[in-house]
Amino acid sequence: MVLDPFIASLGDIPHSRDAAALRAKSADFSWFSPIMSAALAGRMAELVVAPRSEAEVIRVAAACARHRVPLVARGAGTGNFGQAVPLAGGAVVEMLGLEKILWKKPWGVRAQAGIRLGALDEELRKGGRELRMHPSTKRLATLGGFVGGGHAGVGTVNWGILRDRGNILGLKIITIEETPRALELRGDDVNLVHHAYGVNGLVTEVELPLAPAYEWLDTIVLFDDFARAAEFGMALATSDGILKKLVSVHAWPIPGFFKPLNLPEGKAAALLMIGAETREAFDALVRDFAGEIAMCVPEAGLYEYTWGHTTMHALRADRSLTYLVCIFPREDMLGAIKRIHGRLGEEAYLHLEYKRFNGYVTAEGVPLFKYRGFEQMTRLYKAFEAEGARIANAHTFLLQNGGMKDLDAAQIAFKRLVDPHLLMNPGKVAGLDDLPGGISGAALEASQLPASGWAY
Amino acid sequence: MVLDPFIASLGDIPHSRDAAALRAKSADFSWFSPIMSAALAGRMAELVVAPRSEAEVIRVAAACARHRVPLVARGAGTGNFGQAVPLAGGAVVEMLGLEKILWKKPWGVRAQAGIRLGALDEELRKGGRELRMHPSTKRLATLGGFVGGGHAGVGTVNWGILRDRGNILGLKIITIEETPRALELRGDDVNLVHHAYGVNGLVTEVELPLAPAYEWLDTIVLFDDFARAAEFGMALATSDGILKKLVSVHAWPIPGFFKPLNLPEGKAAALLMIGAETREAFDALVRDFAGEIAMCVPEAGLYEYTWGHTTMHALRADRSLTYLVCIFPREDMLGAIKRIHGRLGEEAYLHLEYKRFNGYVTAEGVPLFKYRGFEQMTRLYKAFEAEGARIANAHTFLLQNGGMKDLDAAQIAFKRLVDPHLLMNPGKVAGLDDLPGGISGAALEASQLPASGWAY
Repeated sequence: MVLDPFIASLGDIPHSRDAAALRAKSADFSWFSPIMSAALAGRMAELVVAPRSEAEVIRVAAACARHRVPLVARGAGTGNFGQAVPLAGGAVVEMLGLEKILWKKPWGVRAQAGIRLGALDEELRKGGRELRMHPSTKRLATLGGFVGGGHAGVGTVNWGILRDRGNILGLKIITIEETPRALELRGDDVNLVHHAYGVNGLVTEVELPLAPAYEWLDTIVLFDDFARAAEFGMALATSDGILKKLVSVHAWPIPGFFKPLNLPEGKAAALLMIGAETREAFDALVRDFAGEIAMCVPEAGLYEYTWGHTTMHALRADRSLTYLVCIFPREDMLGAIKRIHGRLGEEAYLHLEYKRFNGYVTAEGVPLFKYRGFEQMTRLYKAFEAEGARIANAHTFLLQNGGMKDLDAAQIAFKRLVDPHLLMNPGKVAGLDDLPGGISGAALEASQLPASGWAY
Repeated sequence: MVLDPFIASLGDIPHSRDAAALRAKSADFSWFSPIMSAALAGRMAELVVAPRSEAEVIRVAAACARHRVPLVARGAGTGNFGQAVPLAGGAVVEMLGLEKILWKKPWGVRAQAGIRLGALDEELRKGGRELRMHPSTKRLATLGGFVGGGHAGVGTVNWGILRDRGNILGLKIITIEETPRALELRGDDVNLVHHAYGVNGLVTEVELPLAPAYEWLDTIVLFDDFARAAEFGMALATSDGILKKLVSVHAWPIPGFFKPLNLPEGKAAALLMIGAETREAFDALVRDFAGEIAMCVPEAGLYEYTWGHTTMHALRADRSLTYLVCIFPREDMLGAIKRIHGRLGEEAYLHLEYKRFNGYVTAEGVPLFKYRGFEQMTRLYKAFEAEGARIANAHTFLLQNGGMKDLDAAQIAFKRLVDPHLLMNPGKVAGLDDLPGGISGAALEASQLPASGWAY
């Protein structure tokens, strides 16, 4: 692609064609999946551009539209699903320059999309507030990236998932047109953009509701037995009177991957954030389940062993591991977890994140296993689904095949409205902007894994 | 009973034998039930004593023990179940003089038992905090009375019931002995005293966790159809991202009993407190259920038409009405509600309070109906139970027969420890301190109503 006229039109907006920068800014954490890794190999931007203001974002959007240059919005690149990897070259638009907090209200905040969640949360906590939820990558991840491709995280055990009404109050996008428009979406409309992996306009501002910043204690409870740990997790997650922000349960050997925590051999571990004020009630619950409190200290980043970070620590310890992502069924959830653990526990090490989802508490399962190829992956998908778990395919970069977002007619119409030239990471939305020649190899196989999805 | 030596030992602690005072201070809101009303007719204290400090409470307790004078602790007398009515004469100990806030922490408070919940909540709100839950009688009811005989209220839709771990952090009681002891109960032990209707020691202090004081909007949504209103209530109660504190749903003609609200004929009404910050998300939910927002204003006491106050407004409009109290089953809850409404809606007007209970959302039902005698009451109990609802018998003053608290061996042992002479409202705990001659008439019949209870 001849980028010179495009580059000329960027004027003084910082940009780079440096090879190292292009490599760095074309990658995210999709290397967690050996399949997605292979499917995305060699996908690279041709230019990185870093607008410093909304006005510059608008200029970038206009230039992309005028010159028909594909573009990918990039926050910190902490996603696991290829959100930040350019499938069709073009420009990476790095949003980190837009980092202002625009206003704070008693229970809400509006900020620019490029602000890091950690910085935002720190600022909020000065006023006794905090984000309702955040990914385990909070320190690095950006607000826009989280809303664009995240769906849950630390805090979801209280507030439900990001998609649940009330968890995103509003957002602003810039359309990719020769004369870009700024659109404010509110109410249910925010979900046209949320979890669309950045293909529906450049998000410049996000408005979120806030949670009270309780005094959290990073807490680890050990159990002889994983089944007991899972029961305890459910009991804690449904103990409405006990303050908690994180309920993350791990079968051995996962706790062994958390080297700095130095946890004892063979035990199942619950990694928790609980509120100091209800500590005594928590202790009583731990006694009921014969747990052993191995740690209970003022907040110090324990969440960086949970959610996506669990996978990262596991991969650090054993590069041959990979994972799947499922949600356990509402009915007989603990039964399903125990049966799967009993049958497959030697192969697939269970990692559970308790969360509210569709108004009730359930566990997201992120089992870790040594990757042995598609057949094994297919077999595991089917084994989990046979127990009523629903799988979100974490190994495909195709938006629909991930299985967490239905792209219905309204979504497609909206996509055409905000990105009429289909420039936002083309190749992401199957059937609409397929790459020339379509997908093949690992990408094709990954898209065919039998994932039921969970309609995120 | 010859009270003179007892009175002499009270010294300068304020007390009265005035007949009007005795009548007033021997009554509570048990007149809501025609059956309990009959059963308690003529039950009267012989003395009212009003200690002004914990030291004076201790002197009262010692005097009661020494002179074997029965006693009943009294807050504001807003309970509906005979909690404040002396079954065996003796002294009413009015606790309103103990109204100090002892300390506040970021998310906790400790106060003397006689403080009114309204005054306490007002003080807390100055610091951006509020009570997790309160009865509809908040303005009058005391902290000790609520913990002694309440079980839920406004806020329970978020925090579960008072009994749920973490909702009462600690409390202090004075034992009824010649040399009284002060006991501090914490953790699960608080439930030895909570909901024991004041028979387990004189509560002098209570420590509670706090909730954030969001900006609440008093809101009324109307529906053509009660079934739709019930569905909406459940959807709101399980919308984890939407801030709410009260979800109270009423079949017509109940809204007509709320004269000052002037609600339209024939409509079902949802009386709500919702958070201003998530108003747009709430509006989207209302649209989904085709509700009509009839009111949405800054908090102005709408809760005083819900929970127990619903019954009060109904009785003001029609003195022949009475009620039962049930909890609908978790499975197919809305189905059970609709079937009961379909079959009995003309006789029993459904009033639902959505609440968290045992870790999930359910509806407490408080249907109102014109009282036609025991046979009707028995028939209605059975009809509700046939649909899986569990009934708490609101028409008996006997602690166990109420069906919300199991008096197990630990409870009985504790009772004997803190009240060895069985002086705290004797007659309340069947089998332990039965009144001479036992119960008869309405009291006996009420105790025989076929209530399954819900092990509160």
